[in-house]
Amino acid sequence: MAQIDERVQIDLGAQSYEILIGYGLLKQASSFDRLVSGGHAVVVTNPTVASFFAGSLIEVLRSRYSAVEVIELPDGEQHKDWASVSLVFDALLRAQCDRKTTLFALGGGVIGDMTGFAAACFMRGISYVQVPTTLLAQVDSSVGGKTGINHPLGKNMIGAFHQPRLVVADLDTLETLPQRELVAGLAEVIKYGAIADDAFLGWIEANLEALLRRDKKALSHAITKSCRIKAHVVAQDERESGLRAILNFGHTFGHAIEAGLGYGTWLHGEAVGCGMVLAADLSCRLNRIERPYASRIHRLIERAGLPVRCPPLGSTRYLDLMRVDKKSDGGDLRFVVLDGPGRASLQRVPDALALEVVASHVA
Amino acid sequence: MAQIDERVQIDLGAQSYEILIGYGLLKQASSFDRLVSGGHAVVVTNPTVASFFAGSLIEVLRSRYSAVEVIELPDGEQHKDWASVSLVFDALLRAQCDRKTTLFALGGGVIGDMTGFAAACFMRGISYVQVPTTLLAQVDSSVGGKTGINHPLGKNMIGAFHQPRLVVADLDTLETLPQRELVAGLAEVIKYGAIADDAFLGWIEANLEALLRRDKKALSHAITKSCRIKAHVVAQDERESGLRAILNFGHTFGHAIEAGLGYGTWLHGEAVGCGMVLAADLSCRLNRIERPYASRIHRLIERAGLPVRCPPLGSTRYLDLMRVDKKSDGGDLRFVVLDGPGRASLQRVPDALALEVVASHVA
Repeated sequence: MAQIDERVQIDLGAQSYEILIGYGLLKQASSFDRLVSGGHAVVVTNPTVASFFAGSLIEVLRSRYSAVEVIELPDGEQHKDWASVSLVFDALLRAQCDRKTTLFALGGGVIGDMTGFAAACFMRGISYVQVPTTLLAQVDSSVGGKTGINHPLGKNMIGAFHQPRLVVADLDTLETLPQRELVAGLAEVIKYGAIADDAFLGWIEANLEALLRRDKKALSHAITKSCRIKAHVVAQDERESGLRAILNFGHTFGHAIEAGLGYGTWLHGEAVGCGMVLAADLSCRLNRIERPYASRIHRLIERAGLPVRCPPLGSTRYLDLMRVDKKSDGGDLRFVVLDGPGRASLQRVPDALALEVVASHVA
Repeated sequence: MAQIDERVQIDLGAQSYEILIGYGLLKQASSFDRLVSGGHAVVVTNPTVASFFAGSLIEVLRSRYSAVEVIELPDGEQHKDWASVSLVFDALLRAQCDRKTTLFALGGGVIGDMTGFAAACFMRGISYVQVPTTLLAQVDSSVGGKTGINHPLGKNMIGAFHQPRLVVADLDTLETLPQRELVAGLAEVIKYGAIADDAFLGWIEANLEALLRRDKKALSHAITKSCRIKAHVVAQDERESGLRAILNFGHTFGHAIEAGLGYGTWLHGEAVGCGMVLAADLSCRLNRIERPYASRIHRLIERAGLPVRCPPLGSTRYLDLMRVDKKSDGGDLRFVVLDGPGRASLQRVPDALALEVVASHVA
């Protein structure tokens, strides 16, 4: 039986929306009750996800929309580019879709980011719904409205802020998720505890085994709590002018690792996991936290099965890659550092110190 | 001597900005006083415009920004596509531009739309300044924040709403404008009178010869008044949910003509001029205005030197082209019609009636 466990309300004025978290949600029409019906519904997905979940979603959408189309995009971060987004525009125009069309992003973060960007740009903005099917997408891209694609010279360099009308996080979709991807998603869950909620960090430590064996209650709680924390941060800073940057804890090191190895070698969550170990160490060297707290973060990430040592890319390459990161503002590198249990901030860091941290964690 | 004749304030809350209208503005640093200085300035332009005005603008910007780059894009509507916008992204990333970069769109509507779209998407949104160098761009794309590119299946199908930080309409730039383009710009000026301000329409009728010979005072007044009218409409409907549609008077017929002949055969303003003649006739046939008022619009457009008879594309093709227009919402065609002097609204129109109007104006 379908069951909505939790509803998380994202308050962004006229752009407010709801995240539904539960089981069997894609199989019941009522999950989509809040949407304006009629017009075209277009499901954007990839072949793998489509084979598991597109059928039931399409059936449900047929009861609410005048026409339902499906677009399958090639799978993987290396296809998160304009060529893929173009396929969406081509299909929308061929099907004579108009401004009343709603896109449904059925898949992980790559599908969500591209579909959101297509929705942001098609006829200068149409509605879309996130239907995330990975743990990472459920706790990360569900909230915040960041959409975009990669450029050969940098990840997510081209994009838009465009809020979905609804997010449906159906935990049934996690059952078919490879364990490696589940673990990668846990990196972001741990991040929320570290930057904003020490009690939640403690809960993760106590329930890590339950999460790793996909205990339904544990997953539901972890996702709900993560979304609430992210929503709280985003509501205060929709366009990432300040506070929101703390959500990038571990990401400057992480992006460098991801890009340096070539996208797809490490999963995003794996790179962020390792990046958080480095960022915790950096926080310690900046005297913002005590060593035992940094070690606690390190231990949890290791227990989750995430990498804690970074690949040997060379200092120059690490520096170049970290500079490309969007948080750079032309001068010093800036990193999100921990200021204590459940607290974080963005700080300028000298190149030499950042490299010292990298050097002491190279595999 | 440089002289700011008029300032038009566009009130859009946090996205508010100012339009400066005057002479010699590109040659004086104070035109850009309201902008945050520092960071990169990147001038996006085309080879023709660059040869006339890029030099002095770059010199002025050098006094305010740490680095000034110039990107020349190929000229013309047929290049208003992703390939051109990509050239901007490539250059921005190669120059290590960051979120504090400001783009300057130096050119006509095509440059303005593409630069605005690049600014909307680069790192999910950076600042840009419109420096329109055609009459059409000064009275049209200066206000409203519409940015975008064409898709093979439709004009402006991909884009974003992104407001500039400032618009600098330097009337000196009109001196080098071909007469055909000046006339095309007048079509939009006439449009503002027709849809929103009958006294202004009367002023245009009385001052048409002065405008055609580029009298400085007349041009300055026409541009200021046009921007004020558009600003008033846009302020009430930033995202084009209703009222703003009246700005598309003449555009459904016009877009069909433009696309049907192939972009660039007729100028946009020429197609809109002819489209307004048809739309005025349509308004008459719908009993919303008297015949003499429709004839008055027709006469003024003809006196300006704009086309008043449309090309023979065939009924089926006209219908198909008008349906692609974004104002279609899946059912009947919708047209902006005149409801009386200075008043307009969006109305559903049966296919047969729209075709009757086309038939009676075919060349």
